[in-house]
Amino acid sequence: MTDISALKERLYEIQSLQSAYDHALSLISYDGVTSAPAGTAQNRGHAVSLLSGEKYKLSTSEETVKALEELDQNRDQLSGREQRMVFLMLKEIRQMRKIPMDEYIAYEELLVQADDIWHTAKENSDFALFEPCLEKIFATNIRFASLIAPDKDPYDYWLGEFEDGLDMKTCDAFFATLRARLVPLIRKIGEKPQVDDACLKGDFSDADQEKLAKELMKIMGLDLDHVGLATTEHPFTTDFGSHLDERITTHYQRDDFSSSLFSVIHEGGHALYDTGSDESLCYTVLDGGVSMGIHESQSRFYENILGRSRAFSGFLAPVIRSCLKDRAAYSDEDFYKALNKVQPSLIRTEADEVTYCLHVMVRYELEKALMHGQITVHDLPGEWNRLYKEYLGVDVPDDRHGVLQDSHWSGGAIGYFPSYALGSAYGAQFLKKMKETVDVDACLAKGDFDPVNAWNREHIWKWGSEKPADRLLKDVLGEPFDPSVYLDYLAEKRSDVYGI
Amino acid sequence: MTDISALKERLYEIQSLQSAYDHALSLISYDGVTSAPAGTAQNRGHAVSLLSGEKYKLSTSEETVKALEELDQNRDQLSGREQRMVFLMLKEIRQMRKIPMDEYIAYEELLVQADDIWHTAKENSDFALFEPCLEKIFATNIRFASLIAPDKDPYDYWLGEFEDGLDMKTCDAFFATLRARLVPLIRKIGEKPQVDDACLKGDFSDADQEKLAKELMKIMGLDLDHVGLATTEHPFTTDFGSHLDERITTHYQRDDFSSSLFSVIHEGGHALYDTGSDESLCYTVLDGGVSMGIHESQSRFYENILGRSRAFSGFLAPVIRSCLKDRAAYSDEDFYKALNKVQPSLIRTEADEVTYCLHVMVRYELEKALMHGQITVHDLPGEWNRLYKEYLGVDVPDDRHGVLQDSHWSGGAIGYFPSYALGSAYGAQFLKKMKETVDVDACLAKGDFDPVNAWNREHIWKWGSEKPADRLLKDVLGEPFDPSVYLDYLAEKRSDVYGI
Repeated sequence: MTDISALKERLYEIQSLQSAYDHALSLISYDGVTSAPAGTAQNRGHAVSLLSGEKYKLSTSEETVKALEELDQNRDQLSGREQRMVFLMLKEIRQMRKIPMDEYIAYEELLVQADDIWHTAKENSDFALFEPCLEKIFATNIRFASLIAPDKDPYDYWLGEFEDGLDMKTCDAFFATLRARLVPLIRKIGEKPQVDDACLKGDFSDADQEKLAKELMKIMGLDLDHVGLATTEHPFTTDFGSHLDERITTHYQRDDFSSSLFSVIHEGGHALYDTGSDESLCYTVLDGGVSMGIHESQSRFYENILGRSRAFSGFLAPVIRSCLKDRAAYSDEDFYKALNKVQPSLIRTEADEVTYCLHVMVRYELEKALMHGQITVHDLPGEWNRLYKEYLGVDVPDDRHGVLQDSHWSGGAIGYFPSYALGSAYGAQFLKKMKETVDVDACLAKGDFDPVNAWNREHIWKWGSEKPADRLLKDVLGEPFDPSVYLDYLAEKRSDVYGI
Repeated sequence: MTDISALKERLYEIQSLQSAYDHALSLISYDGVTSAPAGTAQNRGHAVSLLSGEKYKLSTSEETVKALEELDQNRDQLSGREQRMVFLMLKEIRQMRKIPMDEYIAYEELLVQADDIWHTAKENSDFALFEPCLEKIFATNIRFASLIAPDKDPYDYWLGEFEDGLDMKTCDAFFATLRARLVPLIRKIGEKPQVDDACLKGDFSDADQEKLAKELMKIMGLDLDHVGLATTEHPFTTDFGSHLDERITTHYQRDDFSSSLFSVIHEGGHALYDTGSDESLCYTVLDGGVSMGIHESQSRFYENILGRSRAFSGFLAPVIRSCLKDRAAYSDEDFYKALNKVQPSLIRTEADEVTYCLHVMVRYELEKALMHGQITVHDLPGEWNRLYKEYLGVDVPDDRHGVLQDSHWSGGAIGYFPSYALGSAYGAQFLKKMKETVDVDACLAKGDFDPVNAWNREHIWKWGSEKPADRLLKDVLGEPFDPSVYLDYLAEKRSDVYGI
């Protein structure tokens, strides 16, 4: 007789211990990019390789696998939640076991070094410094894909890691749909008189921008007792062990406060999603967001759909004026228009809503070519610059403003970028649905995020990773995913801002 | 046949893994007191209890113990260093194994909560909030002492944990010696006209004080690639896994820059000691300082003997003027005198050199009484205030400025305080020795710490924990420890400042 209750207890114990290792590993990485002294990456690599090894051993041990398989065989005695835990854990373990432990550990250590080298390379616009590292990362990702899913195309494998079921076929179709309407829209906007965004420019101290950031966090409804703010080179969000300790990061640009403004709202969206997980999911694999597509749907929803809306900008303008110097001369309308200025540019994270997806497509095309050996890592800067010219019409002055701008590849996240575009499109369709029951504009005009947050919590956040992404999407929308809702949204906003 | 080389390899593996756990545990604790959101202590407690448990299991496993015991039996085949590693590891493991794992883990978790509660209690001057926690800590320390060393007095056991061989008998004699000369000296100073310290007071921004702190770190010769600076409620120094990543902390007091100034030099002294360990000691138990007495000898040496010297103050004054506002009107002599003002006061970390040891004695007397049940934790605030009146002649206005001021007890460090007095006295005797070969004053006048640091590195730092504290002390001094050297030093300085 199998003692199911003892096995269930073990199930929670294993997850709890995994979360403790995750706490340590995330914190070491976070420390590395927020406050560690410059020469300490090697020391972090030491701890990361050993602790990852311990986590690997725990996760892939015979004892763990046996317990999970027995639970799986008796899944009729498990709750739906527990079935999902066992499913996700077994899936991950089966993948992990296909990678030899020494390769697994070496990769984790490589990523610590890569992050460090990427920072220096970006600072000095020195791609050659980063190239050997990035080569190893692409080679390892291809190798791991071939070990884990030998029958699958390696890029399809990695796309599916960030959004369940996503593959090149879907991406190609999705991006073609976007391109068909975005390119003419951008052309039309280019023919109109350009918006003046002088209200975003000036000389803003870190202290003032931090005041604004904290204010925004409060307005968005983040619980500051459980969500921290730090600064870093490339903003991101992370949690430590559970959603009870979440950290967002930003980057203050002295001459333009909108960069940090939108980073804070974007990362705040991620943090709202994670911290919105049902309390009972803490220290389980179901805690926190289910996929990067859904995750970016939340971050980009807050950043753009709410953050750049006419209704919210009316509430935001006085907040900006109260936190930052010399903003009194600018009207609410000035801010609204400036926040919605469309102009092809160099930096993805600072791009406007309309051109944003073209930045994603550049990365998608490059990853696809790299994963299939059509180009090499050495070709990257040239190919990057060529595609920026082709897609966005801009000349890349140096690699700092080009191929070195994002931290994803140094973190091994190949296949992540399409989630940004996908999430943006999900978000527009969520808005349509939300508006059936929530007067979104009325809330935003008052800076009252509670009803919006309550809707997201009820439909998305509280589930953590309990529902698979496709099921969650279906449940939220009640209709198939349709990118044209997003394209309509983008066009409509532009008619308001540019009169087209 | 025992395979010694395989066992030796295992010896280094175990230490390496222990250091990875230490990295994680120290970082979680550091994060908690430097940047974590206010409501996250429970989440940290979760990770700390589990990771401490893993470290406990690793350290006390049959396999580890067997390997170490075999090495110990074949110690003639080990280097002196390896013998010392095995000795220290077996000593710690034998102690750990006497504490049941669940009690060990519960204590680690208690300390995470205690730190959090102490912060709130200090902020609100609310001892009652901290009392139940502190009761548990004292009770646990007494219990652990009785489990580990049943034949020893529990306070003697804990004193010896911070300085090998230290006990109440030694402390009583040492403090009596200090008291005999300090009390009349303080009385005499009280009869002289008081020094004016207006040059230390004003309104100093965090940014300016941080500039000064970074400047000081550079002057002291700290390697900023491996030593970081952060802010916290109660300044401390910690390392992460090895001396390759060291962090010091400070606390900016808006109206008096000398508080942070001396914190930085004090913690910088700790960091110099730790980071001065021979590179080959990394990821072993011999990495970093050997005892708290020797550690405080270094921190207090930099803070006082160097930091408050006439020679260095002449170099420091222009640095202060360049970093802080409105200091131009004050002369080098103003700064020298102000930095050496003697006045009985409330806060240990901000106390002058002469009255400092009386602060330590208050804590020593209270710990002694608590560990032997002569007073209870509930009596502490009253007893604290009574002793401050008796020893220092000051009235404690509230517990924030009294019994709640230090973080040591919330961290379980009972028996630590005497190290400060002992270290201060070691330092004075080190100076005497150092002056035989180094023109200390000439170096300080130029702000050139290299020769001083080189001496400390050669005699103290590079050894890490390789030499036991008593042997190190003997080797450095070449004569027995003699507190009268410290008392002479204190008296002499006062004749310069107060003309007595």
